[in-house]
Amino acid sequence: MTYDTENIFAKILRGEIPSEKLYEDEDTYAFMDIMPRAEGHCLVIPKGPAINMLDATPQQLAACIKTVHILGHAVMRGLGAGGVKVEQYSEAVSGQEVFHLHYHVLPFYEGKRMENPGAMADFDHLKAQADKIRAAL
Amino acid sequence: MTYDTENIFAKILRGEIPSEKLYEDEDTYAFMDIMPRAEGHCLVIPKGPAINMLDATPQQLAACIKTVHILGHAVMRGLGAGGVKVEQYSEAVSGQEVFHLHYHVLPFYEGKRMENPGAMADFDHLKAQADKIRAAL
Repeated sequence: MTYDTENIFAKILRGEIPSEKLYEDEDTYAFMDIMPRAEGHCLVIPKGPAINMLDATPQQLAACIKTVHILGHAVMRGLGAGGVKVEQYSEAVSGQEVFHLHYHVLPFYEGKRMENPGAMADFDHLKAQADKIRAAL
Repeated sequence: MTYDTENIFAKILRGEIPSEKLYEDEDTYAFMDIMPRAEGHCLVIPKGPAINMLDATPQQLAACIKTVHILGHAVMRGLGAGGVKVEQYSEAVSGQEVFHLHYHVLPFYEGKRMENPGAMADFDHLKAQADKIRAAL
């Protein structure tokens, strides 16, 4: 399998598809997941091509995990989360759906269960959450 | 919450509790999960203290993710996995149970579903899997 430059995250990185941006640095980009499984569910991706962890460079992985760390703190502070789960899928059999390396940052809240995946977010709500996360960066 | 030096992974690092070791370097240690949710389910931890991602240093996270990468390739090659999921939990509300930072490396196989957590592994079987992973490092 070779990296498909037409995958949705590649299009987001090129600005061909809009995204609710939270943070970026030289090597990584973070934005809201539009089908969130939790309030404040966000994604961290490398700016360079990588299908998943298996073909990523150690530098890409280190850059991503640094941004995951930053976003983890931001959802805790900004949204009052009580914890965070990080997930990363490599290959379709594991559940990977978009073939550009991405880390899920999933905030958890006392007494609240994770949502089932699949429902599109309300975009005003997503933006309001993103504002709180950005303010806490 | 302060880091509890009596947590089970701290005891493993000090050699007070045995573990099926897969790999180590200066900063990290990798071993088999004794309650596996998949064939070859293994764990990567930093050697220094950190409760979870939130209080970990960027250096600890980068070192862990480098070892996760190495183990991901080893379970693919050694066990013939078709994909890998990486999980990391911070704080009890997210599902964290042992309060020493750890990354789960969960191999996936075509046509095989993830196991429910909670059952103790057969230790001979665990060692046989570990042998295959170590041989693929």
